[in-house]
Amino acid sequence: MPLLYYTEPVARLIQELNKLPGVGPKTAQRLAFHILHSPLEEVRALATAILEAREKIRYCSICGHLTQEDPCQLCRDESRDPSVICVVEEVRDLVALEKTRQFRGRYHVLHGALSPAEGIGPEKLRIKELLKRLEDKTVQEVILATNADVEGEATALYLAKILKPLGLKVTRLAYGLPVGGDLEYADEVTLARALSGRREME
Amino acid sequence: MPLLYYTEPVARLIQELNKLPGVGPKTAQRLAFHILHSPLEEVRALATAILEAREKIRYCSICGHLTQEDPCQLCRDESRDPSVICVVEEVRDLVALEKTRQFRGRYHVLHGALSPAEGIGPEKLRIKELLKRLEDKTVQEVILATNADVEGEATALYLAKILKPLGLKVTRLAYGLPVGGDLEYADEVTLARALSGRREME
Repeated sequence: MPLLYYTEPVARLIQELNKLPGVGPKTAQRLAFHILHSPLEEVRALATAILEAREKIRYCSICGHLTQEDPCQLCRDESRDPSVICVVEEVRDLVALEKTRQFRGRYHVLHGALSPAEGIGPEKLRIKELLKRLEDKTVQEVILATNADVEGEATALYLAKILKPLGLKVTRLAYGLPVGGDLEYADEVTLARALSGRREME
Repeated sequence: MPLLYYTEPVARLIQELNKLPGVGPKTAQRLAFHILHSPLEEVRALATAILEAREKIRYCSICGHLTQEDPCQLCRDESRDPSVICVVEEVRDLVALEKTRQFRGRYHVLHGALSPAEGIGPEKLRIKELLKRLEDKTVQEVILATNADVEGEATALYLAKILKPLGLKVTRLAYGLPVGGDLEYADEVTLARALSGRREME
């Protein structure tokens, strides 16, 4: 380990950076040198941003979104349709959907997907909280916007099985060709889905 | 920008992480989520390590190494040979050489290499400080351990030109095949250097 050759605060900095995901010893060293060479004000801004975000941010007790206040801005927004809930795996999926500006309903973040291999069962996801939100019968439709991978599919199937008996409309995002995608380069599964999900031209 | 969709401390965290070298918006978002999900104690350790390293670390006024105390540990080490100075471009080069445990002399970090393209002339490197160290005639040999690239070569040639008239032994690291390297895969320049620098078998 090169850490022995650095004076203590530098060694500790490299060590701490090394703990970040995707940051190996070489990258940690490079980032540490960058930090040591940066103006003190910039370094303070970085350290403060790290600590403040972690200290001030919590999860919305209703939808599970990141927020400073509970409930979050989206849950407090009266202009959003309370009859539709879009269920996503992670906050970043919520953000991706918000960026489309096409959805004006409510969200529910599961914070994960079913994965027997990783020991993630239904009890580890925010499913209990979702069922609670459906109790007052305001919600008419639940959109299952989990990922199009094995875990996301399993999660959507599981949720559909417990939600449909409640008399709700349960929908899933459409599968098909990515917009702008070349037919030639689409994988077979996507192409098969696009074919079976074809729609009449208007 | 996805930042609009995050509450303020999260947006700022992503923004600050995004300023680090090699960290784009996607990586910044991934690192931010990791930080938000980490135990508070770990996040505190990271933020403290960043700030403390930047606040406590300075450059050794003699050799230019990173240090908490001035002069640094290496410059204070009486057991090291004061008659040889090894000149390197960056602190990481010093660390690489220390790791070999083969060099027991002194170091001098230039903090860069000559690069007319980037506007780095001799006055931007710690050359004045090096010349000052040679004044009392303790130093007998200067090893030029700059990189084997264009900038490192130019820097070594420049230094040799001003150091040789002082009556010092001026040496350069040996060029040749990397240890464990396959002849077949060596580039032509390295191979040519290895050939011209060949030594008699003992």
